[in-house]
Amino acid sequence: MRAVFHQQLTALSAELGEMCGLAASAMERATQALLESDLTLAEEVLDTHELIALRNRHVEQTAFKLLALQQPVASELRMVVGSMHIAADLDRMGALASHVARISRLRHPDCAVPADVRASIAAMGAGAVKLARIAQEVLITRDPDTAARLRAEDDAVDAEHRHLFTLLMDHHWQDGVSCAVDVALLSRYYERFADHAVEIGKRVVFEATGGMPSHKKLA
Amino acid sequence: MRAVFHQQLTALSAELGEMCGLAASAMERATQALLESDLTLAEEVLDTHELIALRNRHVEQTAFKLLALQQPVASELRMVVGSMHIAADLDRMGALASHVARISRLRHPDCAVPADVRASIAAMGAGAVKLARIAQEVLITRDPDTAARLRAEDDAVDAEHRHLFTLLMDHHWQDGVSCAVDVALLSRYYERFADHAVEIGKRVVFEATGGMPSHKKLA
Repeated sequence: MRAVFHQQLTALSAELGEMCGLAASAMERATQALLESDLTLAEEVLDTHELIALRNRHVEQTAFKLLALQQPVASELRMVVGSMHIAADLDRMGALASHVARISRLRHPDCAVPADVRASIAAMGAGAVKLARIAQEVLITRDPDTAARLRAEDDAVDAEHRHLFTLLMDHHWQDGVSCAVDVALLSRYYERFADHAVEIGKRVVFEATGGMPSHKKLA
Repeated sequence: MRAVFHQQLTALSAELGEMCGLAASAMERATQALLESDLTLAEEVLDTHELIALRNRHVEQTAFKLLALQQPVASELRMVVGSMHIAADLDRMGALASHVARISRLRHPDCAVPADVRASIAAMGAGAVKLARIAQEVLITRDPDTAARLRAEDDAVDAEHRHLFTLLMDHHWQDGVSCAVDVALLSRYYERFADHAVEIGKRVVFEATGGMPSHKKLA
């Protein structure tokens, strides 16, 4: 009975790692679709989010069954409860990648990103994907030192987010209103995606240590 | 033992209702702060979100203890698990109200909302608050018919969101880039706030019926 339960916990953990890989890949392709006006790639990202959303439901159902049938306590209870929160974060990451893909699709065959901010958007995309890859590593290794790296990477994404908004708010913006709105939303999506990766790291550390996850960032 | 457990469940449910009232009130004041450039009110909203975030942690701790000590099953398990998800939604609603308040504070003593879209923003604010009030009623009464009303109200907020984006994207926008960015973000915050209220309704119905909450909206 306990051996089966431990197999189920291991499978749950593996599923979260795979979902995180899907979220990273979705955001990577969404950014590529955006920068290269690639409609096929954008459509693929929407499909990937559907898949992540299905897996979120599966994790929730599995966790619910484990709570009902195995009545775990202590670290195992933390892990089962945490898996539901983490899957919800991963679902949101998939949704945010799909928002990026939708902006790409909406502007196709034009590119939503003007030349002036192309490097910034590429950097935010790369930073967001890096955070998701680190979160995936944390989910697999449960290593708190790896989780601690998330904060520094998130700071880099936040700095780029602020930089982009400075550009949007100054009077030299040359690319028109609708383009500014796209860039603002894109920047927000990357920043939120990164925040969810950080939350996942906090959850895993919480599961390992038994402390409560610290306050969610109020941004 | 069971009587104490039922008291704890009732208290948990009451706490969610109170948190939802706080979220509704936070968004109501945030919108007023925004439309009237009221700095004091904006600051109050930030404090209210701190309070909601604390209560989210309290609900999570309480739910965790109930799972560990009472090992609930069936509808009681659904309620305890659901309370964690609902508290997380309410925390996000508080965060979104605080984002609205921050835009108001950032532009003070100016108003972030140009005259042309004042009515639209006021309508989105009122719609979002109405959704939160309905969600609060659902949390207190657990009535699925009340929960069903959330969908129609959310459609009204979504329609206003699309309308605002049409205005931002056409070539007659006269209020400059930075103002357009503010309005786009505000519209997004109201729309997300409304989505969370709808999610809460779905959760409560799920708890009552034992079905799984339907797919999260992919927007």
